[in-house]
Amino acid sequence: MSAPDYGQAFTLWRDHAPDWHAYTHHAFVEGLRRGDLPRANFLHYLRQDYIFLIHFARAWALAAAKGETLAEIQAASATVQALAHVEMPLHVQICAQAGIDAATLEATEEAPGNLAYTRYVLEAGYSGDFLDLMAALAPCVLGYGEIGARLKGSGGPYAEWIETYGGDDYQGLCRDVGALIDSALVHRLGPDWTVLPRAGQLAARFATATRLEVGFWQMGLDGA
Amino acid sequence: MSAPDYGQAFTLWRDHAPDWHAYTHHAFVEGLRRGDLPRANFLHYLRQDYIFLIHFARAWALAAAKGETLAEIQAASATVQALAHVEMPLHVQICAQAGIDAATLEATEEAPGNLAYTRYVLEAGYSGDFLDLMAALAPCVLGYGEIGARLKGSGGPYAEWIETYGGDDYQGLCRDVGALIDSALVHRLGPDWTVLPRAGQLAARFATATRLEVGFWQMGLDGA
Amino acid sequence: MSAPDYGQAFTLWRDHAPDWHAYTHHAFVEGLRRGDLPRANFLHYLRQDYIFLIHFARAWALAAAKGETLAEIQAASATVQALAHVEMPLHVQICAQAGIDAATLEATEEAPGNLAYTRYVLEAGYSGDFLDLMAALAPCVLGYGEIGARLKGSGGPYAEWIETYGGDDYQGLCRDVGALIDSALVHRLGPDWTVLPRAGQLAARFATATRLEVGFWQMGLDGA
Amino acid sequence: MSAPDYGQAFTLWRDHAPDWHAYTHHAFVEGLRRGDLPRANFLHYLRQDYIFLIHFARAWALAAAKGETLAEIQAASATVQALAHVEMPLHVQICAQAGIDAATLEATEEAPGNLAYTRYVLEAGYSGDFLDLMAALAPCVLGYGEIGARLKGSGGPYAEWIETYGGDDYQGLCRDVGALIDSALVHRLGPDWTVLPRAGQLAARFATATRLEVGFWQMGLDGA
Repeated sequence: MSAPDYGQAFTLWRDHAPDWHAYTHHAFVEGLRRGDLPRANFLHYLRQDYIFLIHFARAWALAAAKGETLAEIQAASATVQALAHVEMPLHVQICAQAGIDAATLEATEEAPGNLAYTRYVLEAGYSGDFLDLMAALAPCVLGYGEIGARLKGSGGPYAEWIETYGGDDYQGLCRDVGALIDSALVHRLGPDWTVLPRAGQLAARFATATRLEVGFWQMGLDGA
Repeated sequence: MSAPDYGQAFTLWRDHAPDWHAYTHHAFVEGLRRGDLPRANFLHYLRQDYIFLIHFARAWALAAAKGETLAEIQAASATVQALAHVEMPLHVQICAQAGIDAATLEATEEAPGNLAYTRYVLEAGYSGDFLDLMAALAPCVLGYGEIGARLKGSGGPYAEWIETYGGDDYQGLCRDVGALIDSALVHRLGPDWTVLPRAGQLAARFATATRLEVGFWQMGLDGA
Repeated sequence: MSAPDYGQAFTLWRDHAPDWHAYTHHAFVEGLRRGDLPRANFLHYLRQDYIFLIHFARAWALAAAKGETLAEIQAASATVQALAHVEMPLHVQICAQAGIDAATLEATEEAPGNLAYTRYVLEAGYSGDFLDLMAALAPCVLGYGEIGARLKGSGGPYAEWIETYGGDDYQGLCRDVGALIDSALVHRLGPDWTVLPRAGQLAARFATATRLEVGFWQMGLDGA
Repeated sequence: MSAPDYGQAFTLWRDHAPDWHAYTHHAFVEGLRRGDLPRANFLHYLRQDYIFLIHFARAWALAAAKGETLAEIQAASATVQALAHVEMPLHVQICAQAGIDAATLEATEEAPGNLAYTRYVLEAGYSGDFLDLMAALAPCVLGYGEIGARLKGSGGPYAEWIETYGGDDYQGLCRDVGALIDSALVHRLGPDWTVLPRAGQLAARFATATRLEVGFWQMGLDGA
């Protein structure tokens, strides 16, 4: 099955990220697909993912602060809003159904693999510009999209998780984010941006963030 | 008429800002109240205010990025969302009614008084923390509320502007922002924060931002 | 007399900054050259310049934080060090000779024209990347160099100030900063960076910063 | 042997960091003390430490940008200068003696444990204020001081490393940094800062950074 089309930058970046396959085909992901991922690992992942979402919302808020066009500010703002007012309450609810109450969720200690990825993204955004932030965010947003598209229809105990990311809503969001990134690149660097040194620097950011995503899955597999 | 109650920090800060009266009773404001502000000045102000709103939305996005609790992130995010997806399109529409088309609006050169205030706010947020950002944002959000409350019912050619800020929606938002600030202060500095050196430093930020707000009105009055 | 050669970016940027002549030939500058600038204005400028230097040192420190090569970090670091440990103590000493003691200096209220320029520079650096910061810093560093080179040998009561900026040390520093900027541009955007949209965006930053520099001189002329 | 005295904040923070002993008595450290740490692990650590020093210098530069007094700016600036112009060239030289040439050093891929700690520190500084940055930097600066003081005189193959951190110069620097932190706390929060919620938040930053330092040693032990 071919990878979904989320735009030019994504296609380039994923092809230059040595760990892309290790990330999108990680044992944790395969466990979700086959349905044999131990429940304890999934719950550990859910607890960490709650903390992750807070920092992810903060990173998209930073993107809104760093946007240079009204369209960039609006797109990033809508994502923050969806994360803070829809995704996070939903996550609390999913955790509750899984037997993790709000107090346990709040008391979760952030794992090193979580710290590493989220702070890498935020720091890339603070130290660099809007493009650096996008390159560091992309492996998460678009990688989950690619995984969801591949796993779609697998069924099993993790079908709900799989359908969230494989479903039309999330796939549409991935195409929108891919288009936002492509447009931000052309707006700053022109249509031939791929030949510039900056292209290599952004691809390196994407590759490092991908490497840290491998660590995030591994954290899910190691913890319980 | 007494000032509206937007919480403890606001009450303290406004009393220690030497230019608060010069800001809230500026000749531009009195012109809005009496209805004799020349239309050309109002239009100049509207054009600059469009650019202002972009940076203001960016500053609230930065607040979401710097929030330390889910409640802070959610409150700041909702404000960005309202600014980027409601206020700004509305502003474009108001300008269009006043004969300023979108192209003219986009082509407006940012005036020094506008640059001074917006960059002061954003830099306070970047260099300091969430509290520094709130202290720098407060004179705008809450000062417009106080002006709106005082001018409410004045009628005249600027009645629509006046009712926007004097109306229940905006007054409710001011009370919410005041409560957000008070709660952020207690969360970090405890209930007795007013005696700390930090209290004086934040009051100084508020006072400087107030001084720059005077310059913003003056810009409206000088330009045409 | 032709402008001094501080590199490719500077040459381009100054030619696209509509206010460059208004800045480098401001009445304040001409007063320094002819020697008839009132002493009270010069002292007012000196007091504001002390506050300016603090924020200028902070901006160069931010450049070191945002540098992407060891050479960039080292160059920015050396500038901070020179500002904080040499220029600023020297400035305190010059002010003392002019009858402004340290306490008066510390108690100076930052003028709006000072706030506008310094916060514009810092915010450009925080919101953008190393290049945005350089484009915003350049009008100050290199403009003073160009003014110093033009006024060199004018003599009069402001000869010391003129020789500081017209002298070999400062002129060498300007060539170094110009080379740092050119090299940072090529490192990120390649040798043909001038044709990219980013080139126009950076030139706009330089132009806005130049406009704010005009306001800085005007502040010196207005205050006393 | 009692811990060295680097001031009030350090004493408090280390006592509330659950992983302080795991950090300062890590198997890597004990291997340095006993002299039986495999050379390959030490060389792996040296290569990663080069990348670490770059980000560490950037973090101190950010501290200079965020300083609020001339003394804070000067202290942070002097540290950046020492790191960028003394420590890093020295490190290159030490690596060369150990058979790692400059090209190998430059080509080193940053390990996840390195990314996690350095980005945590930088992000703490960007998202918070000067104090957040100091709390995140302190475990490294002062922890190496405590380790150096304890290992001093151990001799063996790592005697040079040990004497660097146990020697008078570095111990003096630790006392200076401790004093800078204490003074920055009192400047903002007053003499009774330890009872404020902020004190707990800063202690948590120190504790998390300490936890990531354990990961840094572990990375040295795992890699080769």
